[in-house]
Amino acid sequence: MSSAVKREKFQQAWARIREELLSHIAQEGMPADAVEWYGKNLDYNVPGGKLNRGISVTDTAEILKGAPLNDDEYFKAAVLGWGVELMQAFFLVADDIMDTSITRRGQPCWYRAQGIGMVAINDAIMLEGAIYFLLKKHFRSEPYYVDLLELFHDTTYQTEMGQLIDLITAPEDHVDLNRFSLEKHRLIVIYKTAYYSFYLPVALAMYMSNVPTTYTLNGKTIDPYKVALSILLPLGEYFQVQDDFLDFSAPPELLGKIGTDIVDNKCSWCINTALAVATPQQRAMLDANYGRKDPASEARVKEVFEAVGVRERYAKYEADVYGRLTALIDGIPESPERGTLKREIFTSFLEKIYKRTK
Amino acid sequence: MSSAVKREKFQQAWARIREELLSHIAQEGMPADAVEWYGKNLDYNVPGGKLNRGISVTDTAEILKGAPLNDDEYFKAAVLGWGVELMQAFFLVADDIMDTSITRRGQPCWYRAQGIGMVAINDAIMLEGAIYFLLKKHFRSEPYYVDLLELFHDTTYQTEMGQLIDLITAPEDHVDLNRFSLEKHRLIVIYKTAYYSFYLPVALAMYMSNVPTTYTLNGKTIDPYKVALSILLPLGEYFQVQDDFLDFSAPPELLGKIGTDIVDNKCSWCINTALAVATPQQRAMLDANYGRKDPASEARVKEVFEAVGVRERYAKYEADVYGRLTALIDGIPESPERGTLKREIFTSFLEKIYKRTK
Ligand SMILES: [Mg+2]
Ligand SMILES: [Mg+2]
Ligand SMILES: [Mg+2]
Ligand SMILES: [Mg+2]
Ligand SMILES: [Mg+2]
Ligand SMILES: [Mg+2]
Repeated sequence: MSSAVKREKFQQAWARIREELLSHIAQEGMPADAVEWYGKNLDYNVPGGKLNRGISVTDTAEILKGAPLNDDEYFKAAVLGWGVELMQAFFLVADDIMDTSITRRGQPCWYRAQGIGMVAINDAIMLEGAIYFLLKKHFRSEPYYVDLLELFHDTTYQTEMGQLIDLITAPEDHVDLNRFSLEKHRLIVIYKTAYYSFYLPVALAMYMSNVPTTYTLNGKTIDPYKVALSILLPLGEYFQVQDDFLDFSAPPELLGKIGTDIVDNKCSWCINTALAVATPQQRAMLDANYGRKDPASEARVKEVFEAVGVRERYAKYEADVYGRLTALIDGIPESPERGTLKREIFTSFLEKIYKRTK
Repeated sequence: MSSAVKREKFQQAWARIREELLSHIAQEGMPADAVEWYGKNLDYNVPGGKLNRGISVTDTAEILKGAPLNDDEYFKAAVLGWGVELMQAFFLVADDIMDTSITRRGQPCWYRAQGIGMVAINDAIMLEGAIYFLLKKHFRSEPYYVDLLELFHDTTYQTEMGQLIDLITAPEDHVDLNRFSLEKHRLIVIYKTAYYSFYLPVALAMYMSNVPTTYTLNGKTIDPYKVALSILLPLGEYFQVQDDFLDFSAPPELLGKIGTDIVDNKCSWCINTALAVATPQQRAMLDANYGRKDPASEARVKEVFEAVGVRERYAKYEADVYGRLTALIDGIPESPERGTLKREIFTSFLEKIYKRTK
């Protein structure tokens, strides 16, 4: 199936889910203006992204089944996928307020949209609340229901922890590069991004496909959720490192946006790589110019990035991590049996990310 | 046990719970400054309230047992009680930002405390996240674990719905009394306050005490959670009506604070009662003066409240609702058997509220 068709199918499931959410709050007796407001919140914040995270739940469920999903299986996987998208929307609406961001996905951030303001905080947490309503409605009688609940809880808390370290490490209004390090970057990326963007969708599909906590293959005991985590966290880290690198290096016409990590004082892989090898003069240049809102400062930071060889270092990092991940994936024992891991789950992610340019 | 001793015991449980929360995030590898930040968030926002909601979980568990709780039972009930307090803290931190409030519990609101700002949004949702970490740690192997999770989910979503109607009905910066009505007031109060403050603590204690979803007494089938809801929602409504009335009528030296509902454009019971019976002249007076930040306007609103007889109407409301609630409570069939409802659960709430003056 082409990715446009996949996206279309996934969005059709959203139309039904959106309707379920709105008719539920109407049935609870909420007045028409509140139902309308919630509808706008859902429409503005949930379906407009790339939907990679959500669609990877249905993709993974299909790989695990080894055959196309029937309608019921597809819809259930899509509910979980939209759960991931709701979670992402919850985080992004809140993050944009915390970062005083201006636009998101080519439109004003929700809290800056006409007539919204700080009600956006309650709107964000209602997006989170929607997840558990949907899980209860569609998965309550499944033996893995409590696993889904715990997975969403754990991932939410981990993402919030990552957000906390990010916020106190790189506040937009106070630059202090002493707080930065490649280790700190790694921790932020794993907690703030990798768990929810990479591990969560795959683990959801695994629970739905009745992958057990442990199984034996050729006399070897496998903990499939641990195996998935051991690959998907470094994969998520790679994805974010690449995102940081593209923010610095990709031509805006290719990237589809203008990189702002340098002026925004982001704890990005590029600055941390530069800090790790900078001479005292280069370090002084970074201290004086990182996170400033003027183009001349930004240009000086970019000069240092070029001088320390951030491009070459990224090329080396990418080759290394690709090799490491490929080896990890190749090490997964496979069997045609239902409920066991398939390498394709991981290669499909890796091939989408490797050498992408936007 | 005196209420001071009860409070002290409940706070001792918090010391242990706080430690569990902090050592968990430290074990996850969070840096020292993040652990310290989370500790301050917990200390500033969780234990400083009246703790009535939290303590009512332990009280209810004891009434249901019909004997003092042993140490293990007490701690488990206290974890649930602190779960309610964490939920309340989550809502209050977020609400204060949405309302641009200045102080809470006699100190600056968290988002206005030194160096916090909008990070408070993430701090609020981490307080929510803490609830599910604690439930997993202490209740995972209990048969009623999933009931606890669903109860917290449902209640959170209901409270968020209540918050939404409140926010769009009574925005601080735009007075429109046409949006107000006693029915709207009732809906806001039930959703925003009654579910989490009254039903949640009792239902948590009921699950923990293995009260079944249904049982038979003298040939009559009882749905104890429905019975509890049918009493605790109107009880919560009564509590909030009283809170609104005291905000208008109680002398500040008795209330411990100065009422601000009129100047803050709150959708309070008093304004809705006045609107329901106001003459056109009185209505014009209310339209012109409600929600204005000056004392003369406030005084004119109070005059109308007096003229339409808000005090007498409240006295009548209170006598009526007390009678209705007493009748409902008296109608609960009782038995000495474990796992069945006791009237004392509800009378203990009612007697604390009835004719309180602060
Ligand atoms: Mg941001
Ligand atoms: Mg951010
Ligand atoms: Mg980026
Ligand atoms: Mg408020
Ligand atoms: Mg409010
Ligand atoms: Mg009040």
